[in-house]
Amino acid sequence: MAHHIAVIAGDGIGTEVMPEGIRALEAAARRFNIDLEFTTFEFGSCDYYLEHGKMLPDDWFEQLKDFDALFYGAVGWPDKVPDHISLWGSLLQFRRRFDQYINLRPCKLMPGIKSPLAGREPGDIDFYVVRENTEGEYSSIGGKMFEGTEREIVIQETVMSRTGVDRVLKYAFDLAQTRPRKKLTSATKSNGISITMPYWDERVADMARQYPDIAVDKFHIDILTANFVLHPDWFDVVVGSNLFGDILSDLGPACTGTIGIAPSANINPEGHFPSLFEPVHGSAPDIAGKGIANPIGQIWSGAMMLEHLGYKEAADAMVAAIEAVLGEGDSQVLTRDVGGQGTTERLGKAIAEHL
Amino acid sequence: MAHHIAVIAGDGIGTEVMPEGIRALEAAARRFNIDLEFTTFEFGSCDYYLEHGKMLPDDWFEQLKDFDALFYGAVGWPDKVPDHISLWGSLLQFRRRFDQYINLRPCKLMPGIKSPLAGREPGDIDFYVVRENTEGEYSSIGGKMFEGTEREIVIQETVMSRTGVDRVLKYAFDLAQTRPRKKLTSATKSNGISITMPYWDERVADMARQYPDIAVDKFHIDILTANFVLHPDWFDVVVGSNLFGDILSDLGPACTGTIGIAPSANINPEGHFPSLFEPVHGSAPDIAGKGIANPIGQIWSGAMMLEHLGYKEAADAMVAAIEAVLGEGDSQVLTRDVGGQGTTERLGKAIAEHL
Ligand SMILES: CC(C)[C@H](C(=O)O)[C@@H](O)C(=O)O
Ligand SMILES: CC(C)[C@H](C(=O)O)[C@@H](O)C(=O)O
Repeated sequence: MAHHIAVIAGDGIGTEVMPEGIRALEAAARRFNIDLEFTTFEFGSCDYYLEHGKMLPDDWFEQLKDFDALFYGAVGWPDKVPDHISLWGSLLQFRRRFDQYINLRPCKLMPGIKSPLAGREPGDIDFYVVRENTEGEYSSIGGKMFEGTEREIVIQETVMSRTGVDRVLKYAFDLAQTRPRKKLTSATKSNGISITMPYWDERVADMARQYPDIAVDKFHIDILTANFVLHPDWFDVVVGSNLFGDILSDLGPACTGTIGIAPSANINPEGHFPSLFEPVHGSAPDIAGKGIANPIGQIWSGAMMLEHLGYKEAADAMVAAIEAVLGEGDSQVLTRDVGGQGTTERLGKAIAEHL
Repeated sequence: MAHHIAVIAGDGIGTEVMPEGIRALEAAARRFNIDLEFTTFEFGSCDYYLEHGKMLPDDWFEQLKDFDALFYGAVGWPDKVPDHISLWGSLLQFRRRFDQYINLRPCKLMPGIKSPLAGREPGDIDFYVVRENTEGEYSSIGGKMFEGTEREIVIQETVMSRTGVDRVLKYAFDLAQTRPRKKLTSATKSNGISITMPYWDERVADMARQYPDIAVDKFHIDILTANFVLHPDWFDVVVGSNLFGDILSDLGPACTGTIGIAPSANINPEGHFPSLFEPVHGSAPDIAGKGIANPIGQIWSGAMMLEHLGYKEAADAMVAAIEAVLGEGDSQVLTRDVGGQGTTERLGKAIAEHL
C-alpha cells in the first residue's frame, strides 16, 4: 500500500534541506520496503504569496486533505512578507484546519553535539515537549480601539476549551506511560495569569487522577525555563499550552545544542486529517542559498513521519543513521553549525548512505 | 532628610533574608550618611491571610502610599493559600495600584558564581531585563462558560495600551542610552500572537525612530529564550511584555547562575507612588525555617532601592561588597546554594562588615 506524502518546501533553507529529507526517506523506504509517493506543491511560500497575493490557493484543503502526511520545510521571509501573514496564511492554517492538536518535539542530547550547558553528556538530557497546537494564546479574536490616539488599546483573547486542554493532556499522559521514568511536568503560570492558567492546572489535576502511575509535577513557566537550563535531567514529558509549548520546544533543543537539527511533528492523533512534519528551525534567510544548512532537522522530521505512519523500526534506523554520522564527527561531512565544513547535500548523502 | 521605608517580609524565607537586607542597608546608610527609617508591616503574607481572610487590610493603600519605598521579601505558600490568591492579593496589587510599571532586573555573571553555561566568565554576561509590569497578559478580564460540561471554555484577555507600551519602551531606550553598547532587544511573538504582538512591534519601531543612536533588534520569544542560552553576550537591554519579561527575568538570572541571588525593582519612575524592591527568588517553602537561604537577593534589592532614592555611590558600594564576599569564596560564609555551608545570618553579616 502506497503512502501519499505532500511535500511543501516553503522558503529559504526549507528548499535546500527538503531534498535531503526525501533522499533519507527514500533510502529508509528501500531498506524497509515501504512504499512512499511524494507529491510536491509550490504553494505555502512567500514567493507564492508575492505572485498570488495569498499563501495558499483557495482549494488547498481539498488538495491536501487526503494525503497520508505533509512533509514541510520552513516558511517565512520577513523582507518579502510579514511573518504574521506568512505563518497565519500557511503553517497555522494547516495546524488548525487539519486539527493537528499535538505538537511533539524531542529534546535529546545527541552524540557529537556540544550542549551549551556545562558538563552535560549524551544520555543526560532526553525528554519530549508536548505542545497544545490549535488554541490557547494563538487565538485570532481581539482588536484595536481608539486607533491612532493616545488612548489606543489592543486586546487579544486567550481561549482554552475543555476539549482542547484535555486531549493534549491525555496525549501527554499516554506518552509518559510509554517512557521508563513515567514522569509528566506541566507548564503553568497560574500565579500571574489568573483565569486560563488556574483552569489548565485544574484539568491537569483531574487527568492525573486517571493516571495514578504517572509522577506529576508543575512549574510556573518563568522558573520552568530556568530549570531547563539548571536541571534538564529532571524532565521526561513536559506539556504546555500553545505559547508555553512553543517557548519550551525552542529552549529545550537549544539546551541540547540541537536547535538547528531538532524535528517536530504536528499530529492529528485520530488520523482524520494528515499530520505535518517539519524541522524546528525556520527558513533562515541569512544563510539561505549557500548550501550550508544542516538537513538533519528535516531528516529527523521524516523519521517522526515514518513512526507516525506505523514504521517504528524504520524511524529508529533513521535516527540511528543521524547519530552514527554525528558520532563519526567527520568535518568534511558535517555542516558549519555542528563544527564542520560540509554542504547540505554532503551531510544528507552521508546519512542516506548509512541507511 | 529621612527616607521612610515600609518593610514587608512576607512568607517563607522572605522572613529570613529580610533582616540581612536591613542589616546591609543600615551599614551602607552609616557609611554614606543616609537617613533610613524602617517601618515593618505584618500584612502581605499567607499567615495574615489565614487569620484575616485577605492578604492586605482594606486601608493598605493609605497606609503605604506616602512611604519613599517598599522593601519586600517574598510572598506565597501554596499549601496555605493558592498562589493566584496570595499573589493577586498582594504583590500584584502593589505593582498596579502604585503604578510600578517598570520591572527591572540585572542579569550579571558575578565573581565566584558558576554559570550553568559552558565557558562563560564574569564580564561575559551583563544585561538588564526591562519588563512591563502592569498590563498585558496579566489582565483580570475574562471568565468561564459552559462550566462543568464538555463544552466548557475559559477566556482571558491580554490588554495592551499605547500608554502602557510606550512608557516601558521609553524607559528601556533611556536605559540603553546610559550603557556603553547602546543596544536594545525587543521580545516579541508577532508571528504567532497576531494582534497584540504586531502592535508591540509597531510601537517599538515608532520609539526607535526617536533614538537613532540605539541599535535595536527583536526576536520572537521562543528563539529569544534559546539565544539567552546560546548567546547571552548578545544582550544589553532586553525589553518585554509582562509575561515575556517575567520569563526572561528568571531565565536570564538562571543563565548567570544567580537565580537565588538576583534582585528586582518595581519602579514608578515619576515617583508618584513608592517603588518596590524584592529579590527574584520566591518564598521557597522547601528550605524555609532552616536559616540557610541566601540573603544576597534581598541585599542586592536594597542596593537597587538606594540607587532609586538617589544614592548611586552607596548602591555601588553594596554591590561591590556582595562581589567581594562572593569573590573571597569562603565556604564557612557562603550559603549552600553557592557552594558553602554558611547560614543566612553569617553571609549577611559578612556583607554588612564589608560595608
Ligand atoms: C509570583 C508571580 C506572580 C510573579 C510574576 O509573575 O510577576 C513573579 O514570578 C515575579 O516575577 O515577580
Ligand atoms: C513560526 C511560528 C508561528 C511557529 C509557532 O510559534 O508556532 C514556530 O515558532 C513553531 O514553533 O512552529
